Order: sequence, then C-alpha cells, then structure tokens
Amino acid sequence: MTKETRYAEASMEAMYRIFTVPEAPGSTLGKIDQKLSQNIAGFLQEHIVAVEKDLEELQKDFSDSEIPEKPIFVSDQADFLMDKLVAQSVHTASPSFIGHMTSALPYFMLPLSRIMIALNQNLVKIETSKAFTPMERQVLGMIHRLIYQQSDEFYAKWMHEPGHSLGSFCSGGTIANITALWVARNGRFDKDPKQGFTGIQRLGLYGALKHFGYNGAAILVSERGHYSLGKAADVLGIGRDSLISIKADANNKIDMRELKTRVEQLRREKIAIIAMVGVAGTSETGNVDPLDQMADLAAEIGCHFHVDAAWGGPTLFSGKYAHILKGIERADSVTIDAHKQMYVPMGAGMVIFKRPSLVSSIEHHADYIIRKGSRDLGAYTLEGSRPGIAMLLHSGLKIIGRAGYEILIEQGIEKAKAFADMIRQEPEFELVTEPELNILTYRYMPAFVRAKLSTATPVEVDQIHEVLNRLTKRIQKNQRARGKSFVSRTTLTPEAWDRRRTVVFRVVLANPLTSHDILRDVLAEQKHIASTNACEQCMQELHALCDDRPLRAHAV
Amino acid sequence: MTKETRYAEASMEAMYRIFTVPEAPGSTLGKIDQKLSQNIAGFLQEHIVAVEKDLEELQKDFSDSEIPEKPIFVSDQADFLMDKLVAQSVHTASPSFIGHMTSALPYFMLPLSRIMIALNQNLVKIETSKAFTPMERQVLGMIHRLIYQQSDEFYAKWMHEPGHSLGSFCSGGTIANITALWVARNGRFDKDPKQGFTGIQRLGLYGALKHFGYNGAAILVSERGHYSLGKAADVLGIGRDSLISIKADANNKIDMRELKTRVEQLRREKIAIIAMVGVAGTSETGNVDPLDQMADLAAEIGCHFHVDAAWGGPTLFSGKYAHILKGIERADSVTIDAHKQMYVPMGAGMVIFKRPSLVSSIEHHADYIIRKGSRDLGAYTLEGSRPGIAMLLHSGLKIIGRAGYEILIEQGIEKAKAFADMIRQEPEFELVTEPELNILTYRYMPAFVRAKLSTATPVEVDQIHEVLNRLTKRIQKNQRARGKSFVSRTTLTPEAWDRRRTVVFRVVLANPLTSHDILRDVLAEQKHIASTNACEQCMQELHALCDDRPLRAHAV
Repeated sequence: MTKETRYAEASMEAMYRIFTVPEAPGSTLGKIDQKLSQNIAGFLQEHIVAVEKDLEELQKDFSDSEIPEKPIFVSDQADFLMDKLVAQSVHTASPSFIGHMTSALPYFMLPLSRIMIALNQNLVKIETSKAFTPMERQVLGMIHRLIYQQSDEFYAKWMHEPGHSLGSFCSGGTIANITALWVARNGRFDKDPKQGFTGIQRLGLYGALKHFGYNGAAILVSERGHYSLGKAADVLGIGRDSLISIKADANNKIDMRELKTRVEQLRREKIAIIAMVGVAGTSETGNVDPLDQMADLAAEIGCHFHVDAAWGGPTLFSGKYAHILKGIERADSVTIDAHKQMYVPMGAGMVIFKRPSLVSSIEHHADYIIRKGSRDLGAYTLEGSRPGIAMLLHSGLKIIGRAGYEILIEQGIEKAKAFADMIRQEPEFELVTEPELNILTYRYMPAFVRAKLSTATPVEVDQIHEVLNRLTKRIQKNQRARGKSFVSRTTLTPEAWDRRRTVVFRVVLANPLTSHDILRDVLAEQKHIASTNACEQCMQELHALCDDRPLRAHAV
Repeated sequence: MTKETRYAEASMEAMYRIFTVPEAPGSTLGKIDQKLSQNIAGFLQEHIVAVEKDLEELQKDFSDSEIPEKPIFVSDQADFLMDKLVAQSVHTASPSFIGHMTSALPYFMLPLSRIMIALNQNLVKIETSKAFTPMERQVLGMIHRLIYQQSDEFYAKWMHEPGHSLGSFCSGGTIANITALWVARNGRFDKDPKQGFTGIQRLGLYGALKHFGYNGAAILVSERGHYSLGKAADVLGIGRDSLISIKADANNKIDMRELKTRVEQLRREKIAIIAMVGVAGTSETGNVDPLDQMADLAAEIGCHFHVDAAWGGPTLFSGKYAHILKGIERADSVTIDAHKQMYVPMGAGMVIFKRPSLVSSIEHHADYIIRKGSRDLGAYTLEGSRPGIAMLLHSGLKIIGRAGYEILIEQGIEKAKAFADMIRQEPEFELVTEPELNILTYRYMPAFVRAKLSTATPVEVDQIHEVLNRLTKRIQKNQRARGKSFVSRTTLTPEAWDRRRTVVFRVVLANPLTSHDILRDVLAEQKHIASTNACEQCMQELHALCDDRPLRAHAV
C-alpha cells in the first residue's frame, strides 16, 4: 500500500490511520503544505488562475449532491481542490486587487493558525480553553484600552473579573453589531424590581413596550451605515422600518440637524430610542461620522451610543490620524474587526463595551457549561462554541506592535491621498469621494462628457448619468474578468450630482504591497477597457448625448 | 541581521518584510510548524502540560493591558505562546479526554486549513469567494440530501439557484439555531399584500403581533433543549419566558402529552406558536426526541418544526442507527455541526432548510454587496463576512466518505454501550442515563450508599443526594486538575430519583482513539480519587448518613 492510498478504505483500521498517520512529505498535500510554508505569495500567484471562468461553468464541478459512498484518496481530493477550487478562487492577497476589505496576511499568521487549529480549543468556557480564556480577555482589554484609555487600575480590576466583560470576540463585524444592539436593547428595558418588571430578556420586546407604554422602538444611523444594522433591526424584532436612516451630508457623514429632528419626532411619537449608531469608516466611502457631536446628543437623550468602527477602528493606532475618530471614547460600545485592518485571517470580529457591567443584560448560563460566577466568556457572546482566533490578534499586537500598526495604517491613508491626486490629474476620471481614511470612489468620465455636463440641462445630466452608470459597471466587470486587477463598485448619491444614483469604482488601500505603479496600472487598464468593444455601445451613446463626433473605430 | 530579528523593527521596510519573507525553517516558529505537520498527537502530548495551573496564576501571564509600543521578535512571541498558552491549553484531542464535544482531528484537516487560511476568501459574496460559493452550495446540498433524500432533479434545480438556498453555513450550532428560529419567526408573520401587511422583517415583532391580534409568541422545546434556544428567544425579541420548556420523560425525551396540553393552552391564550424544536442528541444525555410524533403535531397546528441535530445529525450516516432520527426528514429546518461529529475544526455549523424558498423571509441585500438576483450566500446568513471552512467539510465528505463516517459514528455508539456495561458491572458506580447515541451519564456511588438508598426515607434520600452531588463535583474537579483524563459534569433531574437535582459525570465518546482500556482507567482513577483526602469529608458524611462504620484511613 503506498502512502497515498492508506486512508482510502472503508475500514476501522483506515479510519484510525486518518487520525494517527500524517501525510507523507512527498504526497500531493504534503508538497502543497511545504510550498505554502515557504512562499505564500508565489503559491497564490501560481495556482489561482487569473482569467475568470463563467459561474455556470464553475458550478458543474460542484453539482453532485450525493455524498460519495467510498473514501477517496487524499491526493485525489488535493488535486481536485487545486484544479477546481483554488485555481478558481479570488486572489484576495494580490496587491492589485484593491476592491476588497481583505489584504495579504503577515507570514507568521499561517504557522500560528496551524497551532490554533491543532489545539482546537473552544472559547465558550474555561473547561475547553483554559489559558485561552485569560488570553482572549487580555486582547479585549488591550483593544478596550486602545479605545477608552482607562487607567492601569481599571484593567487590573476588570479585565479578568467574573460576571463582567470588556467585550466579546465573534466571527465578524455583523455579529459584533448585532451583539452591541442586543446589549443596547436589553439595557434599555432591563429588569427593574421596583417597577415589578422582570426585564426584556424574560418578557420579550412586546412585553417591554407594553409595560412602558411605548408605541415602538427605533435605532438611528446614517444612510451610509453598514447593511448588517438592517439585519440587526430585523433579528432583534425591532423591524427594518424602525432602523431610521438619516441623510448623509456631502461628505458622507450623518446630517446632525436631521438626526436631531428625527430624535424629537420619535420622542413625540412615544417610540423608544434604543441606540444611535455612529459609523467610523463607512464601507463604501470610508468616512467617519461626527462622533463627538453624536455622543453629545446620545448623552442628552440618555440613549446607547454604538460606534461601528469595524473598518476604521485601527486608525486609533495612528498618532497622526486618530483624531478623525475623536468621540469614539464616549461610545457605550464599539465594533472593530481584526480580520480587516489588523491583518488577522477571516473570522475575527470584536465588540468592546465601555462599562464592564454592560453585558449583564444579556448574561446567560447553563448547568453543564458557562456556570454562574465563572469567568467563562460564553456567558456574554451571541455565538456558543468559538475557536481561539484571539491568539492571532494577540500575536499581531505583539509582533507588529502599536508602532508597526501605525505605519500600516498611515501608509494606507497616504496612498489613498496619492491615488486621489492621480485620479484628479487624469482628465478621463472623476474623483467622486475624497479619501478621509484609505477608501475612495471614482468613475471613468471622458473629457468630452465632463465638458458637456458643465452646461447640460438636468434632463441631459440624467441621461448622461444613466449611460455613465452602465459604463462604470461594464468597465468594472471587464476588469474583474481579465483577472489582472480588481476594484469593486457601489452606488452613491453625491450632493454634487443632486443626489442622482451614481455608480462608482470603490477602492480600498489596506494592502501594504500595493505600490503607486500598481495604482497607475489600474487606471491605465480602465482607460484601455473603455476603448474596447466591450464599452463601444456606451461610448457611442455618450458621444451622441454630448453632441461630440462619434469615434470611428475602437481598439479591441 | 539574523532571520529571527528581521521583523522586529518599527519601519516600513520591516512591515513590508512581514508580508513577503517567510519564517526561516530553523526559526522557533518554523520548527514548531514542521513538528506539527509531522506529528500532531506527539506535539500536543509533549507541549500541553498535564497538571492544571490555578486560573489566577494563569491570568498573570495575560494581565498587561497596554499594546506593546515596539514590535517584538516572532521567535519571542512563539516561545511565549508555547510556554504560557499552548502549555496551559486543553488537550481536546486526547483520547482520555471524554467530556468534550471536540475530538482528535483527521490529519488532512491541518494542511487543508492552511490552504483555506492562505486563500482568505470571504463567502459573503461571489466577488470575494468565486468557486467557494458553488462549493459551499454543494456541501449544503449534500447535507440536505443526507437529511431529506430528495431526487437528483430537485438538487439539479435548486442547489445553485439564485434567490434560493438549501441552508447556510455559520460559525456554530448556536448561530444555526438562531438562524432557523429567525426564519421561523419571519415566516410566521411574512408579508401578505392582500392583508395590507408588509411583514415582520419591516414592522418588527410588536407590529406583527398587533396586526394579527396576538398576545405574544412562543417556541416550544423539551427541558433538555440546548441553552442556545433561550438565547435565540431573547435575541429574537420573543423573551425567555416564551421559550416554553416541556418536561422530559424518564428517557430524557420530550413528553408528548405535556407538549400537546401546552400547545392547546397557548392557542386558547392567543399566543402565536412560532416553532416547535425537536432535539436530536441532547447535549447532556444524547437522547433524541420522538421526531415523528412532533412532526405530526407541528403539521396539525401548522407551525415550523425545527430539529436541533447539532450533535446527533451525523447518526444519519449509519445504516444501523439512522432510524433513531426517524422524522427528521419532516423538519422544516435542521441544525447540524460539522465541527462536532464530522471532525472538522471549530467554527463550522450549518442550518439546512427543507424548502429552498424558506429563506425568502430573511433575505437582505445591499448595493455594493450581495446584490439582488445574485447567488451570493450572504443574502441568507446571520453572519456577514465568513471564511471558506465549507472546504474542510467538502474534503471530509470525500476523503472519509459515507462509509467512513458510518464506521466513526457506529464505533462511538458501540463504545458508549460497552462503557455503560462496564459501569453497570462496577458496584461503586451508578449509570444515570443509558446511551442512546454516544453520550452517557453516571456517578460514583459506593455500595454502602446504594444499599442504604434502597430503604431510605425521602428525607434521607435528599440528604444523601446532597452529599453525593458534592462528591461528584469534587471527583470531577480533581480528575480534571490531575490532567490524565477528563469527564465533564452536569445536573439532571432523573425520574428514578423523583426528579431530585442529581450531579453526574457526562461522557462523550466521539474520539475514535479512545480505547476500552482508557475507559477502564477513567473509572479506576475516579475510584482512586474517591479514596483520597480530597473526598474524605464527603465520604465521612456519607458513612454517617448511611449508618455505615466510618473508614479509619484514606489513601492520599
């Protein structure tokens, strides 16, 4: 029996071998493993196929619904994965893929991940995680301190205190936001023995609103807030209509005047305000709400102030730019993702709570697990069983350090500013949103269109916009399909265009390996795509709308 | 500059190296990595310290709340992790640790995990996951087929159909249960244009109940249901008091008579029944509810029937024991964890939906992501960004195969039956719950106590029980601290003891490496602990209560 075939047999002996005998170094999987440990970037570059296959085509390789009866060889599965899955995955680590919120990973994250997976701890309770529990509590404490800068005494007292928690780790920003708003909702209607009220946790939202005579409950956030907040409003039983979307101003920041007006209106209508959410780095434009002003208003009306800093939180590492987040230290809770700008692999979100007792309104226990009075982290998490991924952030914070993260954050913001300058200098592009952090949006706009727009009637502007929107989509899809580089796209409603729906390219500059040359190449490729057949129809329509002589021929 | 120190510097160049230069093979982390790839079991055995340190002691190593200013050497962090974290973690893979729901992992899971982490895909949308999306949809289809056994045509039509989903992957069973009950709640009050009702997703629970004139909403489950269901009732705004806990019978299965009585009562009170939850493998005793009878009742009253098969679901792989889950194929939704009995690392839960359109009531979209009409999986998940862990289950299903999983499942159930026989043959133990799957509970009960209990008055039984409960806790804690083996503990209310609170040892037999010899050693160690100083006080009390001559001396 060769090394390759020793598992592929439906017998107890073969099953036993699966758990006890490692892959041979010379086996397919053994070789991949070794290659990956020596050269991640080379591995990804070599094995991910650049040119995109049609999705319908890809599906054919994943269409069998039967679980195979007999075991197959590990090497056969490894070959299949390399050919059909890895080859057709997205090169998220590529420095020219600047449309995602994922980036290349620091090298040390891979061997550390293997340790984490081999240990297979479960952070729901100490019995299945031991030292991982104080380690995770420490990481939460460190991030708490990054945001709230409390004293040594504060952390000495609270970091490991049973019955309390400075935050919770979770799989990502969505669960973090839901957890924060769950805490806010339950805190708003917490038990009150004096009033004979056993609390929303026991009685539910219906019981709570009836008890206090409210007509409903609401959460307020800017129209640029993350889509997970709508999901939170749905899941928490508040309803999407009660996630009150406040207009953003020309800089994509919440309009404080409208926010105040809506708050007053809700109070008149006897709607309980559960939380106000500030955004620190909108997913689409990277802008930060006026957190200090929001904190003032939240304090005035006595409501929970949550800041969604999933993206922008790590800006706090930067001496130069942390001031953009001024006011975050007044938030009752903050969402921050380690798998974004802290360069940890996917699956590492956090919500941090200013006051260590805030979590009491969601506290839960069970007899065989997370017992009362324990330090078990599961008592305050939406998830149950969870892996020990905090270990990777612990390592990032140590190996990269505050000063290292500062460099990474600042290079991203400065690169975004440089890219904005490049776009401004190109006559064929329009910068739609300036980068406040490291995200910007822009679109392709030939000079003759720009000229026409400056004198066009509103109806003409509408018509041109409609074609530009289609053109932007075409260019973005084509660029993606060519596989050399990637920007994402979204739809904004810029003040400058009287809030017309405007499809834009969206660029996220977090990968330290992205160079200025790469950015120049991205623009050059987009100009090239605009000149090919793929865009011919749109370009002709634009020429017609702009009374410009139509081009006779397009490059292919 | 040596290999070890090249990152530990706060400069852009050093930050760049972190992302581009691998660990040297001879470095601390490089050596650990290599060791782990050759011998996981040996690594864990060698590096995890057996004897437990006091938690207060452990905390000292994780007490600094400051993020270090300067980067430290990777090798220093690796040394720290090995000494302070790995050494003090829980040996979940050990064959003599039979109290956890985690087990040893098949070897191939580790190199495959490295590929998964290096690719760092985000399954929220196709743009960040490409082939991973059809791959995950296929895995969900395979598990759907395992449960529901629909035709080839069914899967050909629905597996990859936009706007539909056969299930969703998530970080674990808790999120799976919450997702299922979210679907059930929203489906119960879905939009109905004819009635002028825009649906609970928009209007919230309060609006929905008011519209239909209900006084509340409820979910029913046996008292043995998982604690995540209480959390779900809280989060979803229903309230924990409205998670109606139905008595379990002597076999820890839901009492159908009481269930029917409560259903009728709720209907009289105009409480909307959102879902009935069947448990297929309770966490504490491994018993399975009468799913077929529950399905009948759910059909009769027209409510969502959810089965929490997080633990027991993979029993469906077994030709011999699948019948225990009879009726699961009638459930509207099923929770099943791949990180439990499918031997995937932590972080792989699933909820499967019988009808592919069931998810429409929770569907959500956003402009820059998960666009309408796409196949993006993010439209139906509670989480947002998620890793591609489905790849590991895909590999498990292929490399282990149906027949391999059958062997693993059956060896666990048969080992549990064998262990139950061993316990019955020991005069000093009481088997509290028989294993239906691979979980059982028992406790230490010296022969003189057993003799006394057969003739004791109820008050005497109470007194003896109270001491036995303390004794069981002592033995369990001591065994854990000694670090040789581990059983967990929980509190049951057995019919045989007139539903007195009874602390028991809980044993989970999923690790294929656990031998009969190990099981005999676990019992021997418990008997030994009972004879040591640690248990002296309890034993003396028992002797006094049982009129037995007190022992003169105890071994240490």
